[in-house]
Amino acid sequence: MTSYPDKFTGFQVKSADTWQEVHKQEFDPKPFGDYDVDIKIECCGVCSSDIHTVRGDWGAQPYPLAVGHEIVGKAIKVGPKVTLVKEGDRVGVGAQSYACLNCRQCKNDNETYCRDQLDTYGATWPDSGAISQGGYSSHVRTHQHWVFPIPDSLPSEIAAPMLCAGLTAYAPLVRNGAGPGKKVGVVGIGGIGHFGILFAKALGAQVWAISRSRSKEADALQMGADGFIATAEDQWNEPHRMTFDLIVNTASSTEDFDLSTYLTLLDVHGRWVSVGLPGGGGFTVRNQDFIPNGCFIGSSHLGSRRETLEMLQLAADKKLFTWVEKIPISPEGLKKAFQGVDASKVRYRYCMTNYDDAFGV
Amino acid sequence: MTSYPDKFTGFQVKSADTWQEVHKQEFDPKPFGDYDVDIKIECCGVCSSDIHTVRGDWGAQPYPLAVGHEIVGKAIKVGPKVTLVKEGDRVGVGAQSYACLNCRQCKNDNETYCRDQLDTYGATWPDSGAISQGGYSSHVRTHQHWVFPIPDSLPSEIAAPMLCAGLTAYAPLVRNGAGPGKKVGVVGIGGIGHFGILFAKALGAQVWAISRSRSKEADALQMGADGFIATAEDQWNEPHRMTFDLIVNTASSTEDFDLSTYLTLLDVHGRWVSVGLPGGGGFTVRNQDFIPNGCFIGSSHLGSRRETLEMLQLAADKKLFTWVEKIPISPEGLKKAFQGVDASKVRYRYCMTNYDDAFGV
Repeated sequence: MTSYPDKFTGFQVKSADTWQEVHKQEFDPKPFGDYDVDIKIECCGVCSSDIHTVRGDWGAQPYPLAVGHEIVGKAIKVGPKVTLVKEGDRVGVGAQSYACLNCRQCKNDNETYCRDQLDTYGATWPDSGAISQGGYSSHVRTHQHWVFPIPDSLPSEIAAPMLCAGLTAYAPLVRNGAGPGKKVGVVGIGGIGHFGILFAKALGAQVWAISRSRSKEADALQMGADGFIATAEDQWNEPHRMTFDLIVNTASSTEDFDLSTYLTLLDVHGRWVSVGLPGGGGFTVRNQDFIPNGCFIGSSHLGSRRETLEMLQLAADKKLFTWVEKIPISPEGLKKAFQGVDASKVRYRYCMTNYDDAFGV
Repeated sequence: MTSYPDKFTGFQVKSADTWQEVHKQEFDPKPFGDYDVDIKIECCGVCSSDIHTVRGDWGAQPYPLAVGHEIVGKAIKVGPKVTLVKEGDRVGVGAQSYACLNCRQCKNDNETYCRDQLDTYGATWPDSGAISQGGYSSHVRTHQHWVFPIPDSLPSEIAAPMLCAGLTAYAPLVRNGAGPGKKVGVVGIGGIGHFGILFAKALGAQVWAISRSRSKEADALQMGADGFIATAEDQWNEPHRMTFDLIVNTASSTEDFDLSTYLTLLDVHGRWVSVGLPGGGGFTVRNQDFIPNGCFIGSSHLGSRRETLEMLQLAADKKLFTWVEKIPISPEGLKKAFQGVDASKVRYRYCMTNYDDAFGV
């Protein structure tokens, strides 16, 4: 049972040391605002960010904290100024839950780069001081701009992982011209990488999966990859020198990562976009590595509302379904999911389900 | 006196240890080809690449070697298939002297990124085995594609430094959209940087000079900068956060260089293009530094023939004149020039002149 609307209930981590142990607890949502939507959560995907956050890899956190930011549920209450969502809609919430919507970046579809942007969990709401809590909870209260109607033909557990992992792959593809006539690489065949292959192919690009070994080759080809490159093989880069327009790097480790060799794959002014956020330090680059092709390296943060809606529609239209393993939400289920993500065992995304059993109808 | 056409004469360095001492010596040019142009050199700009090369900063060199790759002179002989240059034309040669002209890169105005590209000095000509020798010489023999007619209104010593330093600044500006409505930064106010300011302004962008101290502020404003940022000042980046579309980094040192703070200047997906080639090692970056604005870093190599001709015409049309100090060519003159560049004393480019005195009429 949940004591909504005054209190929400979540599976919270109490400290970095005990990151694998969640505790079912009530918490205070932020005050309900005119543009807010209350969502009764149905399922939530599991992102490696969840683990990095609760384990403290990215710094101190405001425990107790419920993570999870690939949320799908039902809009059960909408504020008086809400126009984008109706009560009863099936909707999603991703990793971002606030931006000013008033700055230059917000006004040109770059609200994901707003300096005032807030994360779906672990952020402090400026007005009330409440801590934002994620989707391993009974409910979430979110400004309508970050509440996305889900196309009817997408099952909830398929749509949920798109809201962080999917968007993280989709935005750099469309922002860097992935489409017909372009050769796109996806490094790392994990949660984000599998979306990279699905979406790049759907956008019309020639797509190559790039991984250390060939262990995921059959999966990658089934996802739609046109080819597979195994970087553990001798001279692996030679046949592909200066042929890629774009490479989206989803690998989260920078250890033993010979970036300069990967960069030889890029055509003139080609782009290497890293979307993984390693827990560790940086990596070394040399200007000389960029000279032979005038290439660029960069990163990318989520995407805009417009892109989220386009991505969901593309997935619905082309039946691009997340490869997902459902796990009923519970302390044991979350522990299993956290451990599976941490050990890179997941193929290719977990989604926590059966919320009614955990939180009541 | 020079023994052209069988031999050319150059001021050559004999070893890395003796890089400041040049010796006037004859050398064998490559065999004259159907597309070649022989140029009697009139003047040649001095590039920091010259010093890095002869000093061995970039590895072993084929000594004896005459460097210099900002060459202007007179076409005195053209091969039977030459169509782009006429005998008697005043022409220039820059830092690149060969590419296959047949690959995909060559065919789309990216011959500067051809895998077979050869440098104007220090390269081995594939057919003859001759070593390419630079512009501190009586003559140079160059394929017409890399021989550029100089507009009449540009004095030779003004045009010469444009052929490497100028192009190095110009190409990344035009390739990354510098123009009206764009805010462009130029880091480092030296030989390349002064062209960055001149050209970015001429292309219609708002230009900011970015340097450690304000010692070159007056010069930068006179070159056309709209503003000046001194990075030694406290909180220097704050007023400009997320406002630059493009920053061309011409600083050649990476020591004590806090790239992450510079990157805060860039607007969403803004680009940082480094054109300096430090002699030393690499620098460390973190994915996290790229996330707040989704920015890119990269590099750039020279430019195309088309861009070279456009740049020279722009300079002629808008009277964009190199800030140049002329030094008569001689062993003492070159020593002074090498030392002045090495010590960053030059304001803002040396050009070696009075070739007739050194090599005969």
